[in-house]
Amino acid sequence: MAQKTSIPKGTRDFSPAEMAKRNYIFDTIRSAFRLFGYRQIETPAMENLSTLMGKYGEEGDKLLFKILNSGDFMKKVDATDLEARELNRLGAQLCEKGLRYDLTVPFARYVVQHRNDIQFPFKRFQMQPVWRADRPQKGRYREFWQCDADVVGSDSLLNEIELLSLLDYVFAKFGLRVCIKLNNRKILSGIAELIGESDRLIDITVAIDKIDKIGIEAVEAELIERGISEEAVSKLRPILALSGSNEEKLNLLADMLQGTESGEKGVEELRTVYNGFMELSPSAETEIDVSLARGLNYYTGVIIEVKALDTPIGSISGGGRYDNLTGVFGLSGVSGVGISFGADRIYDVLDTLGLFPDKVLDTMTVLFLNLGKEEAEKSARCVAALRKEGVSAALYPDSAKLKKQFQYADSLNVPLVAMIGEEELKNDTITVRDMATGSQSVYPLDEVSSIFRIYQVK
Amino acid sequence: MAQKTSIPKGTRDFSPAEMAKRNYIFDTIRSAFRLFGYRQIETPAMENLSTLMGKYGEEGDKLLFKILNSGDFMKKVDATDLEARELNRLGAQLCEKGLRYDLTVPFARYVVQHRNDIQFPFKRFQMQPVWRADRPQKGRYREFWQCDADVVGSDSLLNEIELLSLLDYVFAKFGLRVCIKLNNRKILSGIAELIGESDRLIDITVAIDKIDKIGIEAVEAELIERGISEEAVSKLRPILALSGSNEEKLNLLADMLQGTESGEKGVEELRTVYNGFMELSPSAETEIDVSLARGLNYYTGVIIEVKALDTPIGSISGGGRYDNLTGVFGLSGVSGVGISFGADRIYDVLDTLGLFPDKVLDTMTVLFLNLGKEEAEKSARCVAALRKEGVSAALYPDSAKLKKQFQYADSLNVPLVAMIGEEELKNDTITVRDMATGSQSVYPLDEVSSIFRIYQVK
Repeated sequence: MAQKTSIPKGTRDFSPAEMAKRNYIFDTIRSAFRLFGYRQIETPAMENLSTLMGKYGEEGDKLLFKILNSGDFMKKVDATDLEARELNRLGAQLCEKGLRYDLTVPFARYVVQHRNDIQFPFKRFQMQPVWRADRPQKGRYREFWQCDADVVGSDSLLNEIELLSLLDYVFAKFGLRVCIKLNNRKILSGIAELIGESDRLIDITVAIDKIDKIGIEAVEAELIERGISEEAVSKLRPILALSGSNEEKLNLLADMLQGTESGEKGVEELRTVYNGFMELSPSAETEIDVSLARGLNYYTGVIIEVKALDTPIGSISGGGRYDNLTGVFGLSGVSGVGISFGADRIYDVLDTLGLFPDKVLDTMTVLFLNLGKEEAEKSARCVAALRKEGVSAALYPDSAKLKKQFQYADSLNVPLVAMIGEEELKNDTITVRDMATGSQSVYPLDEVSSIFRIYQVK
Repeated sequence: MAQKTSIPKGTRDFSPAEMAKRNYIFDTIRSAFRLFGYRQIETPAMENLSTLMGKYGEEGDKLLFKILNSGDFMKKVDATDLEARELNRLGAQLCEKGLRYDLTVPFARYVVQHRNDIQFPFKRFQMQPVWRADRPQKGRYREFWQCDADVVGSDSLLNEIELLSLLDYVFAKFGLRVCIKLNNRKILSGIAELIGESDRLIDITVAIDKIDKIGIEAVEAELIERGISEEAVSKLRPILALSGSNEEKLNLLADMLQGTESGEKGVEELRTVYNGFMELSPSAETEIDVSLARGLNYYTGVIIEVKALDTPIGSISGGGRYDNLTGVFGLSGVSGVGISFGADRIYDVLDTLGLFPDKVLDTMTVLFLNLGKEEAEKSARCVAALRKEGVSAALYPDSAKLKKQFQYADSLNVPLVAMIGEEELKNDTITVRDMATGSQSVYPLDEVSSIFRIYQVK
């Protein structure tokens, strides 16, 4: 009868101690979203596969978790496909639903489906798990949490500035030193146009993206190998080697990209966003980085990435503007810009750097020990009174040995232990022990709620 | 390219207004769980099918959502089973994982898997969605939320009393009038023993459970039809017709069940729990109801059900004690007792009765209108300053027509609108409009944070 207990690989249980830390992250981000005027939505864990398929590339389609149809799931299965073991076709016949892969595609679907009920510009946030059948490895899970904020239905660059300010606010709250990297997809287009290789934009940006890892010379060699002319590569050199302050970079880019339509536009946008953000005196380092090309097939304007400065964990947040999110669902002309916090990565960074506050809420304020039947009854009434005052309290349910009860309080990190024993029962008093210092005091029982209110404030 | 947008049947999107109400429910329950000293855990959406199968009866197995194996899902499929279209066997070969069906079985699995890290008695709460491939109908969804609190590893009836007090606390917070019904599985066993039909316990309780719906006479007819002797049914009559106060019922039951071991034990337990709960002066009506038999195959002691009094929606919460939750996973001797709040049912009840507070948080405190480039820049700085003070604020991102901006503020139920226009820009002032009254006032800009702090308190 007994079974081995385990959970699917790449998934996790979260203990109370872990939940307290996770909640600290989610609560901080949620409060910030609300403070900035974003409003929460939720979408179902399951979406129709027709909504999900084809949105994440061929590789993404393979990473979708598909849900076997209920009832007679073999009914629609084609005998020929079965014979030939045509996995893609069989998957589509066996399954109509899949687990969401990110929050962006469900959001696009939501916007289109509910467009008549939505007031644009729509500032929404969403904090839910997503699932990917990726190969599990350290720091990469098959179930993980995304926290997204997007504005759709407004072209204004004030949205970009606000989202940068939101990133800055959240990481400052976490006490985490970060660098916010900025680029603009139009600058990348301008660069490709400048060197006469407009149709090779992806090759160029993939190569540029590697500068940090392999260096400029290796990138140049790779570009030539990919068939970009030597002349083009030499034109690219000053851009790859771009240095100086952000203002100097912007000026240099403006000079170099003069005459390329999208390049000029890109520099102007980036300058507006950068200056607007600087006006707000952010805590975060900010760096204009033309090698930043994440999500290229997707973003059409600003591109944002946040790196934690004091760990090698890398990107912990990112985002950008996308001009045609909802087009695939039949609603065109709705521009959007958004950011996404990777909650699991942030957890790892805060944990590594010891940045979780000492006192994340994961336990009650006071545990009453159980010192006999009548004593426990009186304690239970006292606990009920404290709860009415908003003091988190509980009574140890069993009349176990005192040592065991103290060990329990210790293991839970309960700050205070209260005792009503024979003596206290007789005298209408209560003994309170501060678990950190070990000091004990006796109080009249009718002062109990004021005592704990004081402790609570501490 | 355009697709029809829809979501799987039985699932839901939640709009910002709905999320605000849902969060009110979840926040209230979560705070109560913490106040009572319960600690949160989370488990993965996906569990191994070996964990889930066989735990919910044959019907339950059919209602599990199964997840198609990743990669070559046909690899392990047996040709003979395929030929014969053996759905159960094929399902098991195509899928190793399923979505959780409730929070109880994953919790049992969690307790066994992490037993060396858990301090018993373990008071845990868990608030997560569950999925069932039920036929969708009004008020019944394929994705819905459970909020469970359980204590495992303690036999003390103080746990039952605490959980009843927790139920009472939460529904009082909601302003919802409820009746908490109480029974004990051992009383049902005692009744079966008393009438000499111990092995027909399930038939008897299924019949008793119908008294409310079909009346005592029809229940008696059904029992006889099921092969219970007329003599036994006549012995049962006074129990079925049990009336009077709870104290009278307890005394009557004690008399009637004298001599039946489990009956005596059941009455004693019920009396202790009932009296202990009454000691705490609950707001809820409390009723001892021997016809309450929910989850019978599962519960071994107290059985709890909560009904909303002012609607016909019925059961909105329930629970009980189970003595062998973890036995199936190889850990015996761990007794547990728990309750579960049905968040979706509670939503429907609060909505029907108009019990949601007027002001559930779903929007910002103040929207700044966008009245030109320079005006917007100044407004953006003002918004940033307000956010630093904890005032939820935002700037309308586009310089749209004033009417459109006011409509936007209206549609979002924003209580305050702030304007920095040409005049205000010149005079370093700000105009604030109370959207409820329509009254407008002009303030010096440097007083702005104190102004909104006052409004915030309102």
